[in-house]
Amino acid sequence: MNTPDGLRSLRVGLGERAYPIFVGPGLLRRGDLLADCLPGGDVLLVSNETVAPLYLETAASALAGYRVQTLVLPDGEAHKTLETFARVIDALARGGFHRDGCVAALGGGVIGDLAGFAAACYQRGVALLQLPTTLLAQVDSSVGGKTAVNHPVGKNLVGAFHQPVAVLADTDTLATLPPREYRAGLAEVIKYGLILDAGFLDWLECSLPALLERDAGPVAEAIVRSCEIKARVVAEDEHEHGRRALLNLGHTFGHAIEALAGYGEWLHGEAVAAGMVMAAETSHRLGWLDAAALARVRRIIAAAGLPVAAPGFAPEAMLSAMGMDKKVIGGRLRLVLLEALGRAVITADVPRDLLLSVLSDVRQAS
Amino acid sequence: MNTPDGLRSLRVGLGERAYPIFVGPGLLRRGDLLADCLPGGDVLLVSNETVAPLYLETAASALAGYRVQTLVLPDGEAHKTLETFARVIDALARGGFHRDGCVAALGGGVIGDLAGFAAACYQRGVALLQLPTTLLAQVDSSVGGKTAVNHPVGKNLVGAFHQPVAVLADTDTLATLPPREYRAGLAEVIKYGLILDAGFLDWLECSLPALLERDAGPVAEAIVRSCEIKARVVAEDEHEHGRRALLNLGHTFGHAIEALAGYGEWLHGEAVAAGMVMAAETSHRLGWLDAAALARVRRIIAAAGLPVAAPGFAPEAMLSAMGMDKKVIGGRLRLVLLEALGRAVITADVPRDLLLSVLSDVRQAS
Repeated sequence: MNTPDGLRSLRVGLGERAYPIFVGPGLLRRGDLLADCLPGGDVLLVSNETVAPLYLETAASALAGYRVQTLVLPDGEAHKTLETFARVIDALARGGFHRDGCVAALGGGVIGDLAGFAAACYQRGVALLQLPTTLLAQVDSSVGGKTAVNHPVGKNLVGAFHQPVAVLADTDTLATLPPREYRAGLAEVIKYGLILDAGFLDWLECSLPALLERDAGPVAEAIVRSCEIKARVVAEDEHEHGRRALLNLGHTFGHAIEALAGYGEWLHGEAVAAGMVMAAETSHRLGWLDAAALARVRRIIAAAGLPVAAPGFAPEAMLSAMGMDKKVIGGRLRLVLLEALGRAVITADVPRDLLLSVLSDVRQAS
Repeated sequence: MNTPDGLRSLRVGLGERAYPIFVGPGLLRRGDLLADCLPGGDVLLVSNETVAPLYLETAASALAGYRVQTLVLPDGEAHKTLETFARVIDALARGGFHRDGCVAALGGGVIGDLAGFAAACYQRGVALLQLPTTLLAQVDSSVGGKTAVNHPVGKNLVGAFHQPVAVLADTDTLATLPPREYRAGLAEVIKYGLILDAGFLDWLECSLPALLERDAGPVAEAIVRSCEIKARVVAEDEHEHGRRALLNLGHTFGHAIEALAGYGEWLHGEAVAAGMVMAAETSHRLGWLDAAALARVRRIIAAAGLPVAAPGFAPEAMLSAMGMDKKVIGGRLRLVLLEALGRAVITADVPRDLLLSVLSDVRQAS
């Protein structure tokens, strides 16, 4: 759906839990879009110290019809913990929120995951409104209902599936996003092309210069197409019993990079970017991807200004860090690989030695 | 289903999340019953310092086919907190549990709710096996998928719906239950009769002496019939959008008593017992229950050795404590009341003054 004011919308088809995603400029002022989405009780608007000065007041104005309380948390992945989760719960409990309350998450993936998990657990679940302000959150983490916090042992080890009642992706907020974070968001956009949509990948290759310039039209198009792919996959497999795991292309490698580097050193999207190259390299050595396709993966990721390797981590340490990943079932390492560009598969049949050699060579290739 | 060895079983009908409840003597040794229920990964057996010395080894033997790790927590409602929840999560993460892992909760309602909440959140949900060792847990808290921890502001304010893969209620464990805790469990049994099954209430009235003696036959019958009623209600309304709230008869009053007394002073079942009398009294003053029925409620609860009043709490303080209950929607106080014995209803239409007078009079009636 496309309207004259640049507003676009799509729907995540999950039966009685279906919800709309709105994409476009100025959406944080569009309280009218929320009229049918929120349950009517108080709203706890959760943000962080970086985003709040920029957009908290605007977002509060979109929620003018509701009694709004605010909670501003410190910024950064280091705060995506059970302790900060407890702070959000405290704010809800002491603020007198009831079952008809709502948590609105204004920020990037950390705020969305954290506030989303609190919404999932408070009174066994209250409404969640996602107001993503980073490219990564707009194309990925705000959609699909995964919420979580980290544990020292691993990322996102504690969480819940809890779908939002609506996602409002105001593309104006991308103007203030630091270049590095913006590029990290592009990694997830590229991911959608790689796993499921070769045509989108073609479009991305042509559009990368415009996307890097943050041209409004192409940016909105990239967000909508990314959300469409994610919405389709989530509708088919909400709780990741199968197909949804495709969305984790590059993530098993990426989580290991994040863990070994120390959370916060690598941005999630950067680690996923390098991880996707590793997955492509592995796919190539299994004889699935030809050299040209592998080179194309590298080229696209490099063109987006993203890392194509993760130097400095011993292959054995990477493999071990990959072992404590949620995609491990029954002790076997399951990986998302590429049978072709635009066609990802999940496999448990990657020889350990092959994986070690990929991790060793990719390290030197940097 | 009834077998020669005293094993009885029923099923909670929740489609692909349906699960069996087994009731009978010696079940903690019946690992064979679990063969089809557990996912196959490691098991974290969670118990407390009171129950573990009695039954941890036995329970571990039922899980002989699995790699079992154990976690023994301090006993008591005071430990049903986010901090203790974090300890269970730590044990799972540091123990290397994967998605195919399982949390087995061996103990009463606190252990079941707490370990259950950890199972709900770890890796966004792993299997949960309920091994209830108190009457209250066997007839109520282990069945139906409600998990939670308390918050200083209110009971069970943080939690999740997470159905177990099986419930094994070993009636032998009731032999070691302190009399006060045993009677507290009877409160929930009586509740089922009051809300939905007048015939069961008749049976209970006759069987109370035998139940208080802990005669194996009547005890198993009371557990099975309680679980049948609960399973039926849960199957109809898993997430408490409507009818399931009937199971909260006496709980809004009861939670207020528990909160005002300080958690742990009153046992949950004791508070519910007094709360059910308050609900019956309120129903009587609304003209729904006649004096004879009200007197019968008091008589049954007193005969079970349970409190029929809660002296010492100011009516206004009670009302205020009741306001922060999960059954409050949109600021209105919703109560479960009785239209007749065996027929409960949910209503938001109780005048505040009537409620205050009930709270005042019931206090003096002690």
